[in-house]
Amino acid sequence: MIESVSIIGAGNVASAIAGKLFQEGIKIIEIHSKSDSAQELASSCNALVCRDISQLKQVDLVLICVNDSSIEEVNLEIDKNLCRAHTSGSINITSQSQIKSGVFYPLQTFSKNKSIDWSTVPIVVQSETKEFAKELASFASIFSDNVVEINAEQRAVLHLAAVFACNFSNHMYAIADTILQQNQLSFDLLKPLIRETATKAVESVPAEVQTGPAQREDFNVIAKHLNHLEAHPPLKELYKSISQSIINLKHGKKL
Amino acid sequence: MIESVSIIGAGNVASAIAGKLFQEGIKIIEIHSKSDSAQELASSCNALVCRDISQLKQVDLVLICVNDSSIEEVNLEIDKNLCRAHTSGSINITSQSQIKSGVFYPLQTFSKNKSIDWSTVPIVVQSETKEFAKELASFASIFSDNVVEINAEQRAVLHLAAVFACNFSNHMYAIADTILQQNQLSFDLLKPLIRETATKAVESVPAEVQTGPAQREDFNVIAKHLNHLEAHPPLKELYKSISQSIINLKHGKKL
Repeated sequence: MIESVSIIGAGNVASAIAGKLFQEGIKIIEIHSKSDSAQELASSCNALVCRDISQLKQVDLVLICVNDSSIEEVNLEIDKNLCRAHTSGSINITSQSQIKSGVFYPLQTFSKNKSIDWSTVPIVVQSETKEFAKELASFASIFSDNVVEINAEQRAVLHLAAVFACNFSNHMYAIADTILQQNQLSFDLLKPLIRETATKAVESVPAEVQTGPAQREDFNVIAKHLNHLEAHPPLKELYKSISQSIINLKHGKKL
Repeated sequence: MIESVSIIGAGNVASAIAGKLFQEGIKIIEIHSKSDSAQELASSCNALVCRDISQLKQVDLVLICVNDSSIEEVNLEIDKNLCRAHTSGSINITSQSQIKSGVFYPLQTFSKNKSIDWSTVPIVVQSETKEFAKELASFASIFSDNVVEINAEQRAVLHLAAVFACNFSNHMYAIADTILQQNQLSFDLLKPLIRETATKAVESVPAEVQTGPAQREDFNVIAKHLNHLEAHPPLKELYKSISQSIINLKHGKKL
């Protein structure tokens, strides 16, 4: 059973996890981070700051909450006898012999200074060792009622899907914002519609609540929009491809 | 001042508008629709059903709440002396001499059986006659505190932006759903993340809260995802173009 934890990182994910663990009375022993935020985070959850990552004290679990690009490095730096899990959706577990190693991936986007309702956050756990996967799942249940144990292949797919649903949808908002700005219109005008679109999609099936000119195959409107985008060739191409993809999905064609 | 209204259409938009007008004590005289829902809608708001659209009684405003493709036809069928406004974001006003004609475009997506908080819905009004635009704006203020008078060019831009922010973001959710289904994973896993992504975007600036592999320019993860999409050439192309667009926006390049 995981009863003591140290955390590598002091960013948004590390802070959200530390906050919840502290609240639930789980002992956080040390925080290590290259950033100046380590001291602040450590103070907030009654932990010590560890300056030398190779000297982490013995704990039940080291949570590696750093950028994807630093995970491998951190993984090699910490004592090889420490059990560890990282919080990334996309990085594979490095299999090192005799180390309990896994993934503790909360499917949420975290912001500093914005508290999160952990109870609904899906937490994906994965380990090549069955027993450790079970330990991680039990630990994750402290955070959320929605814990899912999956394999590496499924996690890769889940991360890919999350890129479409979240990163790419956010970019669609950003494009809209850009178009409005260029025409002295406020992004505020679209906010209620953005909220309602997301709400509808999660309360039903996205493909079934699809609306808009592509879904209606209203080629007059599509032509007007493409005409509007004449001076923005990449956006015009994007508009065309996404519209075609909507039409393909509508007709049950392979995406 | 607009004190009596008839409505053409009995779909989601017509129903939402009729419900609000009835609630606010504005007289709805007649409902006309080719669908069977006309009687039900008329009963719900104390209106009569008008079978012959050319015989609509005199009212202060006829609201044309039909599909974009039917607006022109309806516009020609109704008595040429009746003031009218349609609720579409994309259709231009037909200018017919001596008719007060305009647009009453609520920027929201409406569903039957789901009530809407009108007070925050932006309503865009437009008319080629200044006086009628003012009348429409005053009428719109019955619905919402957020009434905006814009010109035809701005409305076209707004509609284009709405397609990106709403129709296209919904398609991103639909793609994610498809990818998950093909791998026996539940779309439920992404729901909290979708909600939070939309919330973050409307509470700040979308481009500033952009995350994901493209924003980090993490080409390892991007390559893995493209590899995963090998069997789906159109999705692979879409993934590439959207990622490139995210990178371009990040570097302040023209979209």
